[in-house]
Amino acid sequence: MAGGFSAYPGTRDFFPEEMRVRQWMFDCQQSVCESYGYEPYGAPILELMDLYRQKSSEEIVNEQLYSFIDRGEREVAIRPEMTPTVARMVVARSARLQRPVRWYSIANFMRYERPGRGRLREFYQLNVDLLGASGMLADAEVLCLAVALMQSYGARRDQFVIRINHRSLYDTFFADLSVDLKLLGRLLDKREKLTAENFARELKELGLDDREEARVKEYLDLDREKLKSLDSPAARELSILLDYLGDTDAAESVVFDPGIMRGFDYYTGLIFEVNDCHPENKRALFGGGRYDALLKQMGGPDWPAVGFGMGDVTLENFLRSHDLLPAAGNRSGFFFASLEAELDLENQRLADKLRPAVPVEFYLGGRSKFGKQLELAEKKGYRYVLLRGSTEKAEGNVALKDLTTGKQESLPLEGLAAALKARC
Amino acid sequence: MAGGFSAYPGTRDFFPEEMRVRQWMFDCQQSVCESYGYEPYGAPILELMDLYRQKSSEEIVNEQLYSFIDRGEREVAIRPEMTPTVARMVVARSARLQRPVRWYSIANFMRYERPGRGRLREFYQLNVDLLGASGMLADAEVLCLAVALMQSYGARRDQFVIRINHRSLYDTFFADLSVDLKLLGRLLDKREKLTAENFARELKELGLDDREEARVKEYLDLDREKLKSLDSPAARELSILLDYLGDTDAAESVVFDPGIMRGFDYYTGLIFEVNDCHPENKRALFGGGRYDALLKQMGGPDWPAVGFGMGDVTLENFLRSHDLLPAAGNRSGFFFASLEAELDLENQRLADKLRPAVPVEFYLGGRSKFGKQLELAEKKGYRYVLLRGSTEKAEGNVALKDLTTGKQESLPLEGLAAALKARC
Repeated sequence: MAGGFSAYPGTRDFFPEEMRVRQWMFDCQQSVCESYGYEPYGAPILELMDLYRQKSSEEIVNEQLYSFIDRGEREVAIRPEMTPTVARMVVARSARLQRPVRWYSIANFMRYERPGRGRLREFYQLNVDLLGASGMLADAEVLCLAVALMQSYGARRDQFVIRINHRSLYDTFFADLSVDLKLLGRLLDKREKLTAENFARELKELGLDDREEARVKEYLDLDREKLKSLDSPAARELSILLDYLGDTDAAESVVFDPGIMRGFDYYTGLIFEVNDCHPENKRALFGGGRYDALLKQMGGPDWPAVGFGMGDVTLENFLRSHDLLPAAGNRSGFFFASLEAELDLENQRLADKLRPAVPVEFYLGGRSKFGKQLELAEKKGYRYVLLRGSTEKAEGNVALKDLTTGKQESLPLEGLAAALKARC
Repeated sequence: MAGGFSAYPGTRDFFPEEMRVRQWMFDCQQSVCESYGYEPYGAPILELMDLYRQKSSEEIVNEQLYSFIDRGEREVAIRPEMTPTVARMVVARSARLQRPVRWYSIANFMRYERPGRGRLREFYQLNVDLLGASGMLADAEVLCLAVALMQSYGARRDQFVIRINHRSLYDTFFADLSVDLKLLGRLLDKREKLTAENFARELKELGLDDREEARVKEYLDLDREKLKSLDSPAARELSILLDYLGDTDAAESVVFDPGIMRGFDYYTGLIFEVNDCHPENKRALFGGGRYDALLKQMGGPDWPAVGFGMGDVTLENFLRSHDLLPAAGNRSGFFFASLEAELDLENQRLADKLRPAVPVEFYLGGRSKFGKQLELAEKKGYRYVLLRGSTEKAEGNVALKDLTTGKQESLPLEGLAAALKARC
């Protein structure tokens, strides 16, 4: 800070260099989603508080929500997530929407958290939802889309893994357990951060007896083979899904992991989590799952649904740690320098005529020497500089300087736009 | 509403059809700004309240701001405009930025207003700013960019006009007036909405004597010719700017209007307003001007600046009333129908292989008859439907149905992606 005002803590200013990265990240998301036939939607940054009171997690509502009273005495909140909004919108139009609904959005959200690595108060998130379709084909589509997203960023198979599980697998496996399944679920969720001793101790603290502890171990040892021998619909669904994925591109990126929990909020079936394989960044990048009950609970149709949210902060950390962010590169377009002040007016008009065809930035930095202007053009990332002084004017030409090679050539005014476009 | 929750009043849900329009509007803005060498930036939706307390208009701060206390006892506000944020960002980095800075952003804002035509509580706005450059060339560039924007939407010269004025022209012309210049300025701003009698009456109520009233009339009668005879720097600057624009494409769209005021907030030089010429929608679409003092006032460098903001609500009204919104058109890509359930799995895998090349939406609506599926594809805007049943499988083909012509052809699996891409 050079003095003056600061940004709100936990938010980011996107200066052009950061904005280019952000746009590239969003462009990849848009292009993959559109390739699967998903349509974009948008929604307000502010929602009435009621939307979150029942459907968002207690942690969000009680500790993280930016809620306040507006000038009309309404309780409102800045959206902390998109799912309640999507559900609200689908419920409002369900009679007119063609099933299945394939929607995506890229939007910002706010949560009052302690800012840290991978966690800010304002973040962007891609939300992908497939509503009104059940079954393995729908689950598989969303998983394949998640894999395609990671691949669109250039992520290799050894850099990330998608771990999948089924919400009911856990419920039925532990149906006869005496302890609180929510508490046990949370413990399983964080077990990778614990040592074996601490995990065992926390299990004991939950009140599990030896038989129950053995049962937990048995659960965590489940694999694709053992799944097939379990007599539960969830196990069968997962087995079929895994067999199916085994034949796709996504196969090597998707593994079964009975320990994946993803909280206990909306999910009713498939749950999944995308993890970074980097040894120093072993964390969940994003995740999602099936939430078949939500729309009906919100007063809407009894439509099944599956989807996920991909946050930009963890994603950018992932891309940075695996060196997948694009290099800055040259800026396309032309920097029009100023040789003689008397010609600025007509040169600016010339720039204007070229602009529908090619980007032209006109030098406006005062009477700097030519060398300084070239330096500026280079700093701004331009490869080409346009020049037109009285010599070029007399000859009916424009000079084009290539900063990479240092070479300069003359181009006639006639057909100039086309000649420049060919160099973009 | 089909029951359930409502959106916050004065905000919009963008269902895919509305989102396509919004994206098209933003794409035009992005492409024109980039063609002038402007770079995108982004900023948080929430700012510390202090940023607005001094620099935004009293109306915004006292009546329209969404301000509240966060969980850390900070006074914060949802941004009601971009200029204070841009200034904050430029001040923070001025030592490292290359002058002139050409920046644009497309972002959402909130103001607590009574929702109505052209006015909502949440709106989007393009902000264009040229910082660190003074003089007519800079003013002209921004005006030409505004004209280019309107032209990019297909707006014709008889559909809009840009009225320009100079903040100091008014100040110096009325330097010896006894009444409050702010109040007089506001009256001039709204004079077109008043009858001649009411305007005269309100002038009297301000306390103007006959001589002063004649002076106001003389001011409003100023035109390009009379400007030249005035002895004020502002009049000279305006004259030169108008002469200069006279040689550009923008000439026919820009007129001098001494009655344009644009409030009294930041502006120090050129002010302008883009107006709709539609007889039933004669209103300001957007506007801007020069604000040379703001950066320094905010603790930053003494950089001149000029810019404007273009709101999406008034713009969309304009485009709609002049029939300039794009027709929905066909959706690019392919709808993959389901003939036989047993083939769904391998057909979905085929779809996945085609996707990097072309968009493919896979039918997932259950076992509907083929006719229903074609109907759905048509409703979704697809022209082409892909089919692969056991016959096609045996032949190693895929059938492609063109819904526009009704014709169907067979395409071999080999080279299918390229064959489909040729039809996009």
